[in-house]
Amino acid sequence: MAWPEPRKTGMQYRRLGNSGLHVSVLGLGGWITFGGQSDNETTVACLKQAYDCGINFFDTAESYAGGKSEIFIGQAIKQLGWNRNDIVISTKLNWGGANGEVLINNHGLSRKHIVEGLRASLRRLDLEYVDIVYAHRPDRLTPMEETVRAFNHVIENKGWALYWGTSEWGADEIAEACGIAKALGLIAPIVEQPLYNLLARKKVEGEFQRLYSRFGIGLTTYSPLKFGLLSGKYNEAPDSPPEGSRFAKGGDKFVEWMAGNYGGEWWRKDVEKAVKLKPIADALGVPLSQLALAWCLKNDNVSSVIMGASKPEQIVENCDALKVIEKLSPEVMAQIDEIVGTVTLDPVRQD
Amino acid sequence: MAWPEPRKTGMQYRRLGNSGLHVSVLGLGGWITFGGQSDNETTVACLKQAYDCGINFFDTAESYAGGKSEIFIGQAIKQLGWNRNDIVISTKLNWGGANGEVLINNHGLSRKHIVEGLRASLRRLDLEYVDIVYAHRPDRLTPMEETVRAFNHVIENKGWALYWGTSEWGADEIAEACGIAKALGLIAPIVEQPLYNLLARKKVEGEFQRLYSRFGIGLTTYSPLKFGLLSGKYNEAPDSPPEGSRFAKGGDKFVEWMAGNYGGEWWRKDVEKAVKLKPIADALGVPLSQLALAWCLKNDNVSSVIMGASKPEQIVENCDALKVIEKLSPEVMAQIDEIVGTVTLDPVRQD
Amino acid sequence: MAWPEPRKTGMQYRRLGNSGLHVSVLGLGGWITFGGQSDNETTVACLKQAYDCGINFFDTAESYAGGKSEIFIGQAIKQLGWNRNDIVISTKLNWGGANGEVLINNHGLSRKHIVEGLRASLRRLDLEYVDIVYAHRPDRLTPMEETVRAFNHVIENKGWALYWGTSEWGADEIAEACGIAKALGLIAPIVEQPLYNLLARKKVEGEFQRLYSRFGIGLTTYSPLKFGLLSGKYNEAPDSPPEGSRFAKGGDKFVEWMAGNYGGEWWRKDVEKAVKLKPIADALGVPLSQLALAWCLKNDNVSSVIMGASKPEQIVENCDALKVIEKLSPEVMAQIDEIVGTVTLDPVRQD
Amino acid sequence: MAWPEPRKTGMQYRRLGNSGLHVSVLGLGGWITFGGQSDNETTVACLKQAYDCGINFFDTAESYAGGKSEIFIGQAIKQLGWNRNDIVISTKLNWGGANGEVLINNHGLSRKHIVEGLRASLRRLDLEYVDIVYAHRPDRLTPMEETVRAFNHVIENKGWALYWGTSEWGADEIAEACGIAKALGLIAPIVEQPLYNLLARKKVEGEFQRLYSRFGIGLTTYSPLKFGLLSGKYNEAPDSPPEGSRFAKGGDKFVEWMAGNYGGEWWRKDVEKAVKLKPIADALGVPLSQLALAWCLKNDNVSSVIMGASKPEQIVENCDALKVIEKLSPEVMAQIDEIVGTVTLDPVRQD
Repeated sequence: MAWPEPRKTGMQYRRLGNSGLHVSVLGLGGWITFGGQSDNETTVACLKQAYDCGINFFDTAESYAGGKSEIFIGQAIKQLGWNRNDIVISTKLNWGGANGEVLINNHGLSRKHIVEGLRASLRRLDLEYVDIVYAHRPDRLTPMEETVRAFNHVIENKGWALYWGTSEWGADEIAEACGIAKALGLIAPIVEQPLYNLLARKKVEGEFQRLYSRFGIGLTTYSPLKFGLLSGKYNEAPDSPPEGSRFAKGGDKFVEWMAGNYGGEWWRKDVEKAVKLKPIADALGVPLSQLALAWCLKNDNVSSVIMGASKPEQIVENCDALKVIEKLSPEVMAQIDEIVGTVTLDPVRQD
Repeated sequence: MAWPEPRKTGMQYRRLGNSGLHVSVLGLGGWITFGGQSDNETTVACLKQAYDCGINFFDTAESYAGGKSEIFIGQAIKQLGWNRNDIVISTKLNWGGANGEVLINNHGLSRKHIVEGLRASLRRLDLEYVDIVYAHRPDRLTPMEETVRAFNHVIENKGWALYWGTSEWGADEIAEACGIAKALGLIAPIVEQPLYNLLARKKVEGEFQRLYSRFGIGLTTYSPLKFGLLSGKYNEAPDSPPEGSRFAKGGDKFVEWMAGNYGGEWWRKDVEKAVKLKPIADALGVPLSQLALAWCLKNDNVSSVIMGASKPEQIVENCDALKVIEKLSPEVMAQIDEIVGTVTLDPVRQD
Repeated sequence: MAWPEPRKTGMQYRRLGNSGLHVSVLGLGGWITFGGQSDNETTVACLKQAYDCGINFFDTAESYAGGKSEIFIGQAIKQLGWNRNDIVISTKLNWGGANGEVLINNHGLSRKHIVEGLRASLRRLDLEYVDIVYAHRPDRLTPMEETVRAFNHVIENKGWALYWGTSEWGADEIAEACGIAKALGLIAPIVEQPLYNLLARKKVEGEFQRLYSRFGIGLTTYSPLKFGLLSGKYNEAPDSPPEGSRFAKGGDKFVEWMAGNYGGEWWRKDVEKAVKLKPIADALGVPLSQLALAWCLKNDNVSSVIMGASKPEQIVENCDALKVIEKLSPEVMAQIDEIVGTVTLDPVRQD
Repeated sequence: MAWPEPRKTGMQYRRLGNSGLHVSVLGLGGWITFGGQSDNETTVACLKQAYDCGINFFDTAESYAGGKSEIFIGQAIKQLGWNRNDIVISTKLNWGGANGEVLINNHGLSRKHIVEGLRASLRRLDLEYVDIVYAHRPDRLTPMEETVRAFNHVIENKGWALYWGTSEWGADEIAEACGIAKALGLIAPIVEQPLYNLLARKKVEGEFQRLYSRFGIGLTTYSPLKFGLLSGKYNEAPDSPPEGSRFAKGGDKFVEWMAGNYGGEWWRKDVEKAVKLKPIADALGVPLSQLALAWCLKNDNVSSVIMGASKPEQIVENCDALKVIEKLSPEVMAQIDEIVGTVTLDPVRQD
């Protein structure tokens, strides 16, 4: 009996860690852009383009653009008339929500903020539930049991989310959450969202090495181009941001902080590596940005690489990175390792 | 104190496995027919006839006729004005839903599809809950714990189903699901829906042999006549489907695949056995189809045999099979075994 | 700090077994009378009188008068404008519901009937929840785990009841239910509703002896006058029911069955005992019926004695039984034991 | 990345025990005042002033002013248009609710009263949920398991509260509740609300000594000024209440009981100590009342000190107590201990 084929888009899909949820290997994130540097119309255009490319995974957070990222994405979903079952929507909780106003209890991973924060996110998104709710950074003062119980509560009793995950947690914190969930018979996190790219591989390949097989944790990684650094576009402007770049635009606390570091010590070191990587991309006949995206996806523990976009064309270009994956032969990967360095694994305790 | 009698119909009822749910020993299934080869009016007529014969068990699936089977059955239930408490409605999830469109996450046994799929089924059926929701085939890539938790969730927290079961799972998969449910204190499946008939007895009588007593699993079996083969109607047309038969009609992927096998090797072997069984039915003075149905019900582990029907008269005729059960003496059963073969049980490990 | 006094009515209250729920020591039951032999107006009048006497416990069942008992009691509660928090309403499930029609699954203690039956009862009562839902007789074919899970479900997840109990179960069945609840972390039954009176003390004082301390089970007993036999009104009519008595009226299956036994062997033996008990009541200067009610309440394991009433005056008279309790001195109790016999307890295993 | 600052108010916040919930170190309580001695307008003015001072924690109870405290506070919250996420609202259950009428089951810690009582409180408050629901005094006749299950039920299944706590329970009772919650996998209490002040430190510092580290219990203490005694305002009126004081006003059962004790033996002893403490406050150049509040907050186990207020100015004055905390040097604390006495801890068993 023939199996009806999904839309033909050239996109690839992976299960999110050990779970039954499928995400496109490229996801579209709403950080900085939607509701922030990008207006409503651009948001709709980008989401439409992503969907047409086969992307089914859209990521936002309560704190992005003070809640406007969720509002813009929610409106775009409505306007585009998508089937809710066909998309995977994630949001994140920890840093307060609407209006950028952080109240005393309007942040962190207490039961109060997880319940109130997710509810507020759903109102902004105008959705009944998200597919994944992330703990956006750990909350080291709230007992882990309170946090795990609260995520289980919004999934199991409220039906406000289907899965939960973590973002930028330490390996020990993820292991603690999984252990408490197992001990109490509650739902464990299925995914971690770390920063991961050619210039920052240590956490994902080192510290996290035992999480994948032991707890079935999947990864949705962000910042694959390290804020554009791996697109090579800052290679020729080592001192100050080129006009039209996000760092020249500003308007976001994080962007402004990054702009302040522009041209500093670690920035120069990173640019140096980007300069060295460029010939490898040239030899393969692909842009450096596609090489950088494809390199992330060579790692089987990565379920999806979240990219940002301020115009639809970027999405189309980035999707071509999928064709680059097969070009990353062992020899090419070795050349890359030579430039960016590798992670030494603990020889005794690794799985 | 006298017990008020149920409607006098000659129908018999069995508990579904070890559960407290009662199903008529003949059930009516919506596969291929309702919403597919049969129109709305015929659906209503068949359901009415079945109900008048005492049948209380109606089976459908999200994937039957691209969701139209559920829509037609739901409309018929409304039109016939049945008491919801008086009927047992089951549906199945795994293969996507409405419009035959299979989306990336719109299939399988992930929490996402079980939650979204059942919700969509209930909307098509226009019911608040089904009695049984089946996992339509296993999903070997989704962790069993995610699947068991999700079925428990829709039963215990959402109230969208009262029981859950499996369909065409392996014995080890059913045992794993029951074991996980027990370990986590969740609701275990109560029923498996396998193919079972005179020409295919191996799985039910062999592989499943320990499931009945160990886990209280009941069976609702389908295809009792092996797509009409055991009605004897293809005995005289070994090469191509007779006019008016479902294989001549087509219009369903599975039917078309079967039509392609028509007259092939296994088809001829099966027809051969049907030819040999005919004299036994003749000697009992009953149609071969009734013999075939009654034979399924001789197996105490079978709670209900699901039949299809494209017109009301077939249902009335099939119900007469109940009178045949008592005619299946040990001698007759031995003659049948001679023709169709028996299943050798594992002598050491069987219960 | 003074504690505001409840309404001054002379009524007494006991906790229901080991639970935190308080019931008046006399309860009003809707069996046979409300919706059956008694009309709407009488029902309201009886409930009002009971409430004015301090009775807070009203008992009905899905099967009483084919569901009309629940309807009449629900309408009376609405009409009387009672505070919901001030009353304890119980109903019972097992024997089908509205219209006296018993459907295939519309009885027993399956998850299907517990969910559907309680929902139907609440609709008839026009209440959001009952305080106690009873399993009206055991269902020996449904797995106990299914039954315990279903009662837990309607209490914990649906909020349709606050507590659950059993009625006319065996000690082993109650112990099994409590054991399963403990093992699975579910809510256990808190109360059993047995028949208990001067002529039938064996089950409550013998078979049940270990349930009270081990499981904290309380009792709401019914039939304190054994269908009027202990009112002494049949003492002078040993052969056929006096005019105006419930047995002359008929109209209920149970009543008719009892009427058929009227004058039979066990009936005559019981009347004999009632004749012998009369002088004891006379010596105390109270009606035999009050002696019979008070005797039930001398048993500390009895939380409430459920009485029927077809007119308000009976309630007022029965409430006077509370004053008789203190007259039941050890000497009087010994005289009674002499006539009705005592229960020999298991000397080794009793608590 | 800079963290947006909360409103600049000089207020301090502490986590409630080991939980993730943050409360201002001064809370505003509705006992005696709101809905009782204070009218609607005053209630709004006090709540507004408290909020402007950075207070986020507002405490009431079903029994305060016969339910009117909840109604007044609820109306004030609506009128002030506060963000629900920005405030912590607590109420307490045990002593019956609206109209001061205590019904048979309308008190205590049974499942019936916890469910019905909290629902009634939410209606009076016109809120969907409270942040904390307290068990207002223990209920020694209801099984602890019933109480713990019921609080878990209203939090986990109903969503009517986010946390639960106890008020004026014994250490053994709190430990029992925490133990049962752990054994059954239910939500444990996070806070106890005891009376605590310079004249009553024994329970908090002695009996409770092991609760803090073992169970993570936090404290919200009440009566920091012992009904005004530690404001020094009764120092000059040892025999009868000064005009305008709450004891002269009356109108509340508790206040009247206190007024009856006015000038009695323990009252005189307490006044004596207040007289001796005054010079210490004078030496620090602060009012005695601020010294008394600050002293409570020197105890790290105290999360919040609940104060009453009948006019906004009192709140402003009390908030100045926060500046006094740092003035309480070891020497000053020793002088205070000399006057009020210390608590001898169990040297062997303390943690």
